[in-house]
Amino acid sequence: MFPNVLEVARTLIRERVVAGETVIDATMGNGNDTLFLARHVGETGKVIAYDIQPQAMEKTKERLEREGVLERVEMKLASHEEMTQLTGPVGAIMFNLGYLPGGNKEITTQAATTIRAIKAGLSLLKPGGIMTVMVYWGHPAGSAEKEAVQLYCSQLSQLEFLVLQYQYLNQQNQAPFLLAIERREM
Amino acid sequence: MFPNVLEVARTLIRERVVAGETVIDATMGNGNDTLFLARHVGETGKVIAYDIQPQAMEKTKERLEREGVLERVEMKLASHEEMTQLTGPVGAIMFNLGYLPGGNKEITTQAATTIRAIKAGLSLLKPGGIMTVMVYWGHPAGSAEKEAVQLYCSQLSQLEFLVLQYQYLNQQNQAPFLLAIERREM
Repeated sequence: MFPNVLEVARTLIRERVVAGETVIDATMGNGNDTLFLARHVGETGKVIAYDIQPQAMEKTKERLEREGVLERVEMKLASHEEMTQLTGPVGAIMFNLGYLPGGNKEITTQAATTIRAIKAGLSLLKPGGIMTVMVYWGHPAGSAEKEAVQLYCSQLSQLEFLVLQYQYLNQQNQAPFLLAIERREM
Repeated sequence: MFPNVLEVARTLIRERVVAGETVIDATMGNGNDTLFLARHVGETGKVIAYDIQPQAMEKTKERLEREGVLERVEMKLASHEEMTQLTGPVGAIMFNLGYLPGGNKEITTQAATTIRAIKAGLSLLKPGGIMTVMVYWGHPAGSAEKEAVQLYCSQLSQLEFLVLQYQYLNQQNQAPFLLAIERREM
């Protein structure tokens, strides 16, 4: 069986990020990726994690506390656009586009802010670093966001970035797919 | 660096095919995949290889002879549509769509025959077996063929097959991409 898209994203990150690095979770959601990243960077590493929904932040915080990794994570109740205020380099950045699973499905990521956040994130990546964008587009604003993100990514300079799209074709219900953007080593 | 699409195709095959199996090269071309497959299935395995161009067959034959693996390969100067005449199961089938590199660029694979050959091939795959289709679409008939193949693959039953598309987005010149179709284990 082919690995699922989430597993592919994690494998790409494991191959490129080592303990002690700083990484970003652009969309905490229920904290799955935050926890994965916090474990991966280890005690000496750091995760900066964003979400605009208090519900997401609370859930993630509880989870990190339970797993004993809360102190590795700097949680921000803010839009991931605020990555513009950070200085890099970071080893990896994870995005999950769409709505908060189990939350209000009308609150979703949106094309314009997503693109700005991706752009800000790419400028922070170390050479050899990676951004993964899981595109859940099965919601009303999803198609427009998907197309905007694909268009933006397809125009990134080949000299600076490699953009990989990893997608299952014969799935129903607008199955999520993965975009992985690697900053080339100079 | 992400692996290139050709390397991904070969890795998927290496993970699923063992020595002694029968596999198919649907498009010999210059024999790159034929040689890869012949080495991989070993002395007890078998490769059935198709091409409609005598030039491709000659080149491939020379190459296989030089590498000492010719006797593992059954070469057919025929369209890959003739796979309908085979009985399975086979472990893997490789396609390269487009024209013969270094040959006449006006002789290319075509949507209708490609789809029939893919269909015939899928019916031969063992459970857990894999078909890889490298889509080189930078030629006049390429866009139509690409779209027909993607449409066909996207309609394959989810219960029987998994279809993965692996593609670099920010490449120029209609870069090739990979479709990998795995027959599910029952």
